Formats: sequence, C-alpha cells, structure tokens
Amino acid sequence: IEAKGRRAEDRIQALAAGLEESSSIWQEVRWVYIETPVMGVNAKALRDQAIVVGIIRSFLWRNGLDNSMVDNGTWKKGVLGNGHASKEEIAAYAQKMLKVPTDQPQDAHDAACIAAWGYNNVPQEVANV
Amino acid sequence: IEAKGRRAEDRIQALAAGLEESSSIWQEVRWVYIETPVMGVNAKALRDQAIVVGIIRSFLWRNGLDNSMVDNGTWKKGVLGNGHASKEEIAAYAQKMLKVPTDQPQDAHDAACIAAWGYNNVPQEVANV
Repeated sequence: IEAKGRRAEDRIQALAAGLEESSSIWQEVRWVYIETPVMGVNAKALRDQAIVVGIIRSFLWRNGLDNSMVDNGTWKKGVLGNGHASKEEIAAYAQKMLKVPTDQPQDAHDAACIAAWGYNNVPQEVANV
Repeated sequence: IEAKGRRAEDRIQALAAGLEESSSIWQEVRWVYIETPVMGVNAKALRDQAIVVGIIRSFLWRNGLDNSMVDNGTWKKGVLGNGHASKEEIAAYAQKMLKVPTDQPQDAHDAACIAAWGYNNVPQEVANV
C-alpha cells in the first residue's frame, strides 16, 4: 500500500483507508509477524511507526488474522545468525536465499527475512493445522 | 473501556476488541481530540501508547468520526494558560470548571480538559454545521 501526502498525518490516514481495501490479499495468510517499532531513532519516528502498527493490528484482529510482534534483533539472529546483521547482509541473504529481486528496497528485503523467521517460528497450534 | 490482562499485549488486544463494541456511545460526537503520546517517558511506554492511538484512530476513521491529535503542552496552555500546568492544577480546574467528580482518576481530569480545549478549537467547517 502506497500512501502519499505531504504530512505524516495524511499518509497515515491514507494507509489506514488503503488497508481496509486490501482484504483479498490475505486469503492464505495464517499468521502475521510485525517488526516491533525500533527504539533509538527519534521519538517522533517511533511514535508514527507505532501508530501505524496499531492501525495494522486493528485491521488484522478484525479480520481474524493472528499476529504478533518480533524485535529486529530477534529475527536477524534467527535468520542470519547475527542480531546485528547489516543492511547489506540482510539484502544479500534475501536476494540469494529468499529470491527477492535485487531492485527491491531495503524494507522488502527486511520483510522477506521477517517472513522467513515467522515461517520457522510459527506457534505450534498453527503449525499443526 | 477497561482491558485487563497480565501482559500489555493482552490488554491492547482486549482494548481493540472492546472498542469495536462501543459504537453506540459515539452518536453525538462531532470531533475527537487524542493526546499525542508523550515523548520523554521510556520508549516502550511511548510505543505502547502510540499503538493504542493507532487502534483508536483506525476505529474512528472507519466510523466516519473526524479526529486529530493535540500535544499535552498545547491543551494545557489553551485551557489553563500554562503549558506546564501540574497534575494538581489540572485536577482542580477540571473539578471546579468542568464539574468532573473529585473521585475520578487523573486521566479523567486530563480528558475533560482536552475535551474543553477541543470544544474551543474545533475546525471551522465543523463549528458551522
């Protein structure tokens, strides 16, 4: 979902609306892992990230989609063996092992690795379905 | 909405579910002001507050309820004349001027002042309806 707008406020509202229109892509989804908003960046960025996470979780719960949060250190350690893996290492892994096209942005490489982590860490009750 | 649970994670999910059941109380509402999550507290508290704000804004937008954010310094300045008003000053004002019962918690006193601020700062297009 691409949300345009000059102000973060406008982009957040557009994203919330776009998400409601996206129901068809969730058919086969069994569990969603969301990266925990990162501490250490500035507080305003953390706040906006967390508001977006709240909007997404609201959408997922209302649509019966189980979801949980995972810290970036946890998925990096689990997938790459190093909780402090660099952007370059993540992109290289995603391209080689997860077949993410090289022209994709860093967020897509991160997301592929988070999905790979989730695939290997899905709660037992889901794995057994 | 009271959401119980040992973990913040459980309380947040319960709150999201409770909000969806609350539609009947919103009939007369024209605009909702939400206090911007406060910087300066610890990052985890800020993150959880902001996730809750995202869940609430998602609910409000989906139900056609206009809403915006207001910093605590802004509403304190507007209502009490002092952007750094103390908890005691806020409670005293809310009890005397806004008739909030004295047995209410600080959050209720804050909320009454935010509502008072909103009443005096509602966007022109709403005020003219």
